[in-house]
Amino acid sequence: MKQQNNKYIIGMDVGGTKLATVVADEKGNILQKIRKPTEAEKGAEHVIDKLFGMVHETLDLAELMLDDVLGIGVSFGGETDTKAGLVYPHLPGWEAYPLKDKIETEFNLPAIVENDANAGALAEWMFGAGRGYDYVVYMTMGTGIGGGIVADGKIYHGANNSAGEVGHQILLPDGPLCRCGKRGCLEALCSGPGIAQRTQEAIRKEPNTLILKLAGGDINAVKTEFVVEAAKKDDPLANRLIEETGFYMGWGIANLANIVNPEVVVIGTIAVAAGDLLLNPIRETVKKLAVRRAAEVVKIMPAQLGDLVGDLAAIALVIKSIEL
Amino acid sequence: MKQQNNKYIIGMDVGGTKLATVVADEKGNILQKIRKPTEAEKGAEHVIDKLFGMVHETLDLAELMLDDVLGIGVSFGGETDTKAGLVYPHLPGWEAYPLKDKIETEFNLPAIVENDANAGALAEWMFGAGRGYDYVVYMTMGTGIGGGIVADGKIYHGANNSAGEVGHQILLPDGPLCRCGKRGCLEALCSGPGIAQRTQEAIRKEPNTLILKLAGGDINAVKTEFVVEAAKKDDPLANRLIEETGFYMGWGIANLANIVNPEVVVIGTIAVAAGDLLLNPIRETVKKLAVRRAAEVVKIMPAQLGDLVGDLAAIALVIKSIEL
Repeated sequence: MKQQNNKYIIGMDVGGTKLATVVADEKGNILQKIRKPTEAEKGAEHVIDKLFGMVHETLDLAELMLDDVLGIGVSFGGETDTKAGLVYPHLPGWEAYPLKDKIETEFNLPAIVENDANAGALAEWMFGAGRGYDYVVYMTMGTGIGGGIVADGKIYHGANNSAGEVGHQILLPDGPLCRCGKRGCLEALCSGPGIAQRTQEAIRKEPNTLILKLAGGDINAVKTEFVVEAAKKDDPLANRLIEETGFYMGWGIANLANIVNPEVVVIGTIAVAAGDLLLNPIRETVKKLAVRRAAEVVKIMPAQLGDLVGDLAAIALVIKSIEL
Repeated sequence: MKQQNNKYIIGMDVGGTKLATVVADEKGNILQKIRKPTEAEKGAEHVIDKLFGMVHETLDLAELMLDDVLGIGVSFGGETDTKAGLVYPHLPGWEAYPLKDKIETEFNLPAIVENDANAGALAEWMFGAGRGYDYVVYMTMGTGIGGGIVADGKIYHGANNSAGEVGHQILLPDGPLCRCGKRGCLEALCSGPGIAQRTQEAIRKEPNTLILKLAGGDINAVKTEFVVEAAKKDDPLANRLIEETGFYMGWGIANLANIVNPEVVVIGTIAVAAGDLLLNPIRETVKKLAVRRAAEVVKIMPAQLGDLVGDLAAIALVIKSIEL
């Protein structure tokens, strides 16, 4: 017998290289999870078939039926139009794909699609470092710098769902080229590849550094994680690069805080790995560069959800929509 | 006999040098207006007494009674805490002044206090260049660069009422000193005094310009309005300064658009005076520097309310609160 109090949520985390499906309870406890490669090159229908199959597999593993499920949330690694339920994967055959409709038709359940940075912001607000606050900005800090804004407990979408692009704030108009095609974006300076590039340039002038040793002496093998590791061992060049990264991040966050006035800015991956070593220079710069009232209120915190953020992002979308 | 359909609104525009009270109908048509100097140096109670007297005078002029009034809106030239009804005028005796309570007690009418940039954003959204849009950013561009955000048809306040400080976005951390104490804020570069300062520096190197003639040959008398006037007559230095101003404004607005994703950015005073001469370089820069989706949707428009913005700002607060 179906119990009304016993409802579950399905989450889909759809990325360019990996797909995940999870089933969770209403509190966000994840019961089962399946992960498979996306194989985007095989086309939209292949990916959709696989994803739908994974939903059934995940339910089977959890010994649940579709009847036990309240809704399906999708955290999508790309542009979305949440209102229209469209995703824009920029893959062959997937221009403006009506993912919400497809899911609702297949499973006869309500679905929500959202881009991963916005959904991640909601997840950190609901389960992570943003818990208990009304105004939260979430910044990924990995291969790119994405962002999402939760304002008054809701995802802030803006006019056409592109709000929160904090990584493409331009700091140095003549700075390094960003993959977005512009120069000197925060992302070009402080993403993983951005930090690695600045590091490689610095090593060319100053090769006597632990960073290069950690990269096995190969400058092309230099990665951001070696900079963090070397800075933890007090390598002078690594310290300087972390300070510089903290300054750029703090500058960008100060500008952001002046405009959005959040209580918390939650920063992912690299900030989590580096901890206070990076967070403290960010905090000092924000204090110095933001307007007084914005600086007074804002806390800079590492993300708390780690690898679970994608799963919880998808789940949080459904939990939030039930509340409304 | 009092008619329920015949209701009026009182607006107060409280600035550091001028006070204004207006009475308007529910459509925002201003029926009467009084303006007096603030005389802030005489202290809070003097200003309040004067303001309250002006309300009665304005009603008398309009041949209305307090019974005909629906509510009182205050557009305040300084920090406010709208929820708590406090204003922070930074004048002797006016730290955290409970202006909302004072007004409500005196007139037995509901009151709303709001800082002038936020209230101005609401006014441009309700009556001006932002009409018909859901996401509007308003930027003053006069002695300072203030800002307000209307999102989904409501003022976006942020965590502690300091959201929308678009003028203190830092573009050049080693740039000219801003009156906020930091360097290279958009305001330090593009406010009236900011443009004048850049102009004076340029004239020292290149004195053969119409701008200097318009200032009667006195470099210290150079004002932004002379730059605009000279640019309209195609003076080469003035053209370059307007282009440069357009670049800085466009850069700041691109960063803002990436984060807030507005449909319209409405710019006041100097942008109104200069028109497309300044707006076009702003538009080109925003197109170039903002992320694609934000750039696609955002329009850059001159403010429409001119000198009426303060009056309509106060009135709009009450009209908006009635709708809710």
